[in-house]
Amino acid sequence: MRIALGIEYDGTDFFGWQRLKEGPSVQGRLEQALSRVADHPVEVSCAGRTDAGVHGRCQVVHFDTPAQRDMRGWVLGSCSNLPDSMAVLWAQPVADDFHARYAARSRRYRYRILNRPVRAALEARYVTWERLPLDAERMHQAAQALLGLHDFSAFRALSCQAKHPHRTVLSVDVRRDGEYVTLEIEANGFLHHMVRNIVGSLLLVGRGERAVEWMAELLAGCDRQVAGPTGPASGLTFVGPRYEARWGLPPEVSQ
Amino acid sequence: MRIALGIEYDGTDFFGWQRLKEGPSVQGRLEQALSRVADHPVEVSCAGRTDAGVHGRCQVVHFDTPAQRDMRGWVLGSCSNLPDSMAVLWAQPVADDFHARYAARSRRYRYRILNRPVRAALEARYVTWERLPLDAERMHQAAQALLGLHDFSAFRALSCQAKHPHRTVLSVDVRRDGEYVTLEIEANGFLHHMVRNIVGSLLLVGRGERAVEWMAELLAGCDRQVAGPTGPASGLTFVGPRYEARWGLPPEVSQ
Repeated sequence: MRIALGIEYDGTDFFGWQRLKEGPSVQGRLEQALSRVADHPVEVSCAGRTDAGVHGRCQVVHFDTPAQRDMRGWVLGSCSNLPDSMAVLWAQPVADDFHARYAARSRRYRYRILNRPVRAALEARYVTWERLPLDAERMHQAAQALLGLHDFSAFRALSCQAKHPHRTVLSVDVRRDGEYVTLEIEANGFLHHMVRNIVGSLLLVGRGERAVEWMAELLAGCDRQVAGPTGPASGLTFVGPRYEARWGLPPEVSQ
Repeated sequence: MRIALGIEYDGTDFFGWQRLKEGPSVQGRLEQALSRVADHPVEVSCAGRTDAGVHGRCQVVHFDTPAQRDMRGWVLGSCSNLPDSMAVLWAQPVADDFHARYAARSRRYRYRILNRPVRAALEARYVTWERLPLDAERMHQAAQALLGLHDFSAFRALSCQAKHPHRTVLSVDVRRDGEYVTLEIEANGFLHHMVRNIVGSLLLVGRGERAVEWMAELLAGCDRQVAGPTGPASGLTFVGPRYEARWGLPPEVSQ
C-alpha cells in the first residue's frame, strides 16, 4: 500500500533534504526510521527538496510498503526512531497513483527576517538578520511583480536542474510584525534557490537601495547576475505543498 | 558611571543565569564579554535570575564602570564577544541609584505549550510539549484565582531563598493560537519555580483532570505537595522586568 506522511524538521543540523554520502540528510534519517518500523528498506519521495539549513513545517512524502501497521503505529514508531529535530506529524493511506511531488498543485514557503540593530540570540535558527531598517510595504509592492506565470531565470541558481525556468506565483506577501519582516509565497513550483534569491533582491528594495520597480525589471531581464545575493538559509521554511481535495489529505496540505 | 543593558538569550545550553563553577552561565559569559570591552573586571546585577534552559527576551542588568565608551560601543563590543545564543539589545546610562533588581516594579514571564499528538521538531527549544488536548479557556479561568496578593507557597520550590512567599500577580492570561497554548503572567516578583509550578497545575486543569476551582484551593492550601509537577524549563521565557518611567529605559521595560 501507499502511505503519505507529513514531516516537520529543523534543517539547521542537516545537509539538506536529499540523501547524501557526505553527511546527515532529512531524507536519509526518515528512511532509516521508516525502514525500522516497516522491517524492510523504505524509500520516500517528497513534495519539495530543501537545502541545507532550510526548515520544513509540513513536508509531504509518500512511500510503498507491504507492512501492515495502523497509521498511529507509523507516526509513533517513526518518531521514536527520529532525532529530536524531526517529527512525523501524520500518516495516511493514499491511492496508488498519488505522488507527493507530481500531485502537488502548489508549494508554500515562508522567509522570516529579524530587522533590528542587533543579531538574534533567541530563535537564531529560524531567522535571517538584517541590521538596516527595512520598509516592508515597499518590499510587498515590489514583490507583486512576481505574481503570475513568468520566466524566473533572474532568481534561478546555476545549479538548478529544472527543465524550464517558468513558474506561476499564486500569492506573495511581505508584512512587518514588530521587529520581524515575513515573506509568504505560494507558487506551483520553485526553481533552486528561487525564494532565497527573491529575498536577496527584496532586501535591496526594503533598504531603499533599489526602486520598487526594480523587481519587475529584474524579472524581465532574466539575468541572475543582476539580481541581489542569495538570502541565508536559516530564515527559510518550506510551509508545505497543497494537493487537490480528492486525495483526502489533512487540511493544511489540501486546497 | 552606571550602565543598564537589555539582554536576550537562548537558555538551552546554559546552566542558568547565575555564575557557577560547574558550567557555562549567562551571567558568566556576559561578564566576560563586558570585561573585555571595559578592560577591567565587570560584575552585573540582573532583574530576575533564570534557571537552566529558561530563555530571556529582555533581561535587564546594570553594572558600574569608569570606562568611557559610547553606548553603541558597549552593545557592539559585547555582542562580538558573546556566543551566538546571547545578545546585548541596548545599553543606556542610568542614575547611580538605579538597581536592575530592586528598581523593578514587576516581571513578566511567558510559557509556551505545543499541544498536539506529536512532539516538536521545529522550535523544540522554545516550547513544552503536551500530547493530550488542553482546554485553554478552562486554564485561563482557573488562573484568574492567582490575581492579587497571595501566599504562593503552593507553587514555591523547596530551594527557594525568598524571604517570604507573598507576591502580587498583576495579570495572567492563557490563550490558544492553533497548536500553541501560551500563558503570560506579570507579578511584582516570582518565587523559585513559581511559573513552572503554576503551569504544571494548570495543565491538569486544561486536561480536565482537575476542576477549574482547584487552582484557588491549591493557593489557599499553601501546600506544594498537593499542586501539580513543575513544568519543563524549555517552554519558559523571561519576557522582562518593568521599571518606572523616570529611569528613562526603553519602552519594552518601562511602565
